[in-house]
Amino acid sequence: MTTTPNDGAVRAGESIAVEPAVTDLPGHRLVLGADNPMPLASGQLLGPFTVAYQTYGTLNTERSNAILVCHALTGDQYVAEDHPVTGRPGWWERVVGPGRTVDTDRYFVICVNVLAGCMGSAGPKDIDPRSGRPFGLNFPLITISDMVSAQKLVVEHLGIEKLFAVIGGSMGAMQALEWAARYPEMVFCAIPIAGAARHSAQNIAFHEVGRQAIMADPNWAGGDYYARDTTPERGLAVARMAAHITYLSDSALHTKFGRNLQDRQAITFGFDADFQIESYLRHQGRSFVERFDANSYLYITRAMDYFDLAAEHGDHLPGAFKDSAVRFCLISFTSDWLFPTSESRQIVHALNAVAAPVSFVEIETDSGHDAFLLDEPEFFRILSGFLQGAADQRGLA
Amino acid sequence: MTTTPNDGAVRAGESIAVEPAVTDLPGHRLVLGADNPMPLASGQLLGPFTVAYQTYGTLNTERSNAILVCHALTGDQYVAEDHPVTGRPGWWERVVGPGRTVDTDRYFVICVNVLAGCMGSAGPKDIDPRSGRPFGLNFPLITISDMVSAQKLVVEHLGIEKLFAVIGGSMGAMQALEWAARYPEMVFCAIPIAGAARHSAQNIAFHEVGRQAIMADPNWAGGDYYARDTTPERGLAVARMAAHITYLSDSALHTKFGRNLQDRQAITFGFDADFQIESYLRHQGRSFVERFDANSYLYITRAMDYFDLAAEHGDHLPGAFKDSAVRFCLISFTSDWLFPTSESRQIVHALNAVAAPVSFVEIETDSGHDAFLLDEPEFFRILSGFLQGAADQRGLA
Repeated sequence: MTTTPNDGAVRAGESIAVEPAVTDLPGHRLVLGADNPMPLASGQLLGPFTVAYQTYGTLNTERSNAILVCHALTGDQYVAEDHPVTGRPGWWERVVGPGRTVDTDRYFVICVNVLAGCMGSAGPKDIDPRSGRPFGLNFPLITISDMVSAQKLVVEHLGIEKLFAVIGGSMGAMQALEWAARYPEMVFCAIPIAGAARHSAQNIAFHEVGRQAIMADPNWAGGDYYARDTTPERGLAVARMAAHITYLSDSALHTKFGRNLQDRQAITFGFDADFQIESYLRHQGRSFVERFDANSYLYITRAMDYFDLAAEHGDHLPGAFKDSAVRFCLISFTSDWLFPTSESRQIVHALNAVAAPVSFVEIETDSGHDAFLLDEPEFFRILSGFLQGAADQRGLA
Repeated sequence: MTTTPNDGAVRAGESIAVEPAVTDLPGHRLVLGADNPMPLASGQLLGPFTVAYQTYGTLNTERSNAILVCHALTGDQYVAEDHPVTGRPGWWERVVGPGRTVDTDRYFVICVNVLAGCMGSAGPKDIDPRSGRPFGLNFPLITISDMVSAQKLVVEHLGIEKLFAVIGGSMGAMQALEWAARYPEMVFCAIPIAGAARHSAQNIAFHEVGRQAIMADPNWAGGDYYARDTTPERGLAVARMAAHITYLSDSALHTKFGRNLQDRQAITFGFDADFQIESYLRHQGRSFVERFDANSYLYITRAMDYFDLAAEHGDHLPGAFKDSAVRFCLISFTSDWLFPTSESRQIVHALNAVAAPVSFVEIETDSGHDAFLLDEPEFFRILSGFLQGAADQRGLA
């Protein structure tokens, strides 16, 4: 392990230790990379660093019933329990729980807060021991591949040699794909939902708008806002508002809000939130900043931008899945324009090209990209059916 | 005319005089509403106030060859000449000019900077004579209908009883529809391009994001930034970046930029503009703030949000066109997701319901909403063909 003077920037080959910021968030913590720092895609080494995770259900004696759930951009490890900050139900309680589609009476479910996140895993708000101050933008850039590397260490720590399934929507789908591509021997089946093998130009563009909104906020202060009384909450709220539109569909917005007015009979000829859609978006922005760190938002959007599975295999996507025995189930949603069906279909074509076992379903819904988080019975049926078939193959009772 | 104490806010029935800010922008100016203040949709009265406009070509002796071009959100009256601020070609030089589709050897073309704009027509940066200071947010809210009211006064001033055509794309299409609905006797034909009869929930949402980005910029200062050294240029740039994505198509972004890197061989593991699309968007934001006023952006987006032609006719769109003799040509673009074809089709249905003469063409293109500003030969052919037929009907040589 090498050390460097604390001049801010980090270098390839440099080892970066991360001291977790003080927090009272509940759940499991694991310190990783203490003896062997974990290599990052950037060439830097990370360690020691902490990851936070939650589990639901019981690992069977064969350790064969583990399902890794990978969360999306603004999700976290509190999948199936009340959220410790917001008090609201876990983000996937509809899917994960006793008797649910991902039945915790049957499966052992793990979810790890992604690296660069803000719910207990190492991220920009943690302390840089070199300076004794929060990293801010001196935290190393994290990729989807780095997130998966850390998850693999958690899985190994739990004594699991092979995951029964890796499931994730959106950025979670990227992680599921990365798992299947890099560690096929550790994954029995993979279920990437509403995902893509690489982030599109339009999606990079929307992320860049969000980042610029945050960086334009003077309270962002170059990322060094932790010791101040203020946070870049206005910039982060604008970023969230812009992103939130992309999670829904034009049709859903029309049906849910249309041009309905908010608590008034007529337009006010001003800049109040006359329309329900405006009031709704402002609320989305305000509530997001209460639970999310602006720098984490920068880092995680960047990780998604950088994701390009084919690029890691000579720009040939089938190469990512060559000789893989992983069973795939891809799911997309008709009204998802952020990760449209065409993105999933490209992955299916690549899997077909290497004769990998794959099932693919496009689900008819108005709910847009967020459909995987919502009450979509057809989605639940597909997921449940595939898991049941895979469990039979795996010999799970 | 009533006067009120200068306490900022304006009231229904109140008459608002506007003193133009000093500017050296070239072109025609007209003072309107000096004797008879112009009623606004908000119930206020406007006058005296100034509008700026440009003309191209020569009005014939019958005054029957005038075409009113209505500009879009960030457009202006400099349709077919170098822009006085940017030095770049006029926004519709591809369409308007000698020998072009809208042939200025044949037609007399007028374009009026919309009310609340920032290129010479009355807007928030002008002076409130009550205070001697710029209006800022004390400027009255302007609607599409108000913009058209002012244009009508310009047309009348020019001695034109009936326009040969009213043409506009995007917000310009809204104005063309409003003209046809309110003053059918003054319009021989109307050509709304890439438009809608009302602004959708998704479009209101994107506008609201832009407004919040501006208002989040401390330099916006409640709209009262004119006397300061600073303008809310970062907020306005973010607003422009978000909007600009909606003007293009996913497919065009993929073709033009994809995941190409900007002047580098590899990603830098940081927040620089690694990708061409990021660099392009940042440039769009930067160059926009040099020519546009942030408060004007707030006002004009709001005018679009408020536009709902059916609402003015008992929520029955055909009512807007009842007994109209106006000949309509509607044009939409396949990849336009901001004003998709379905919006134009709704208008066509309404026109059909009152047996109005209408032709409708959806043009196949990858260029998204901005297609009407770009080199689209099929679009030029349709426009040219319709104008020729209408000119024959109108008896124009």
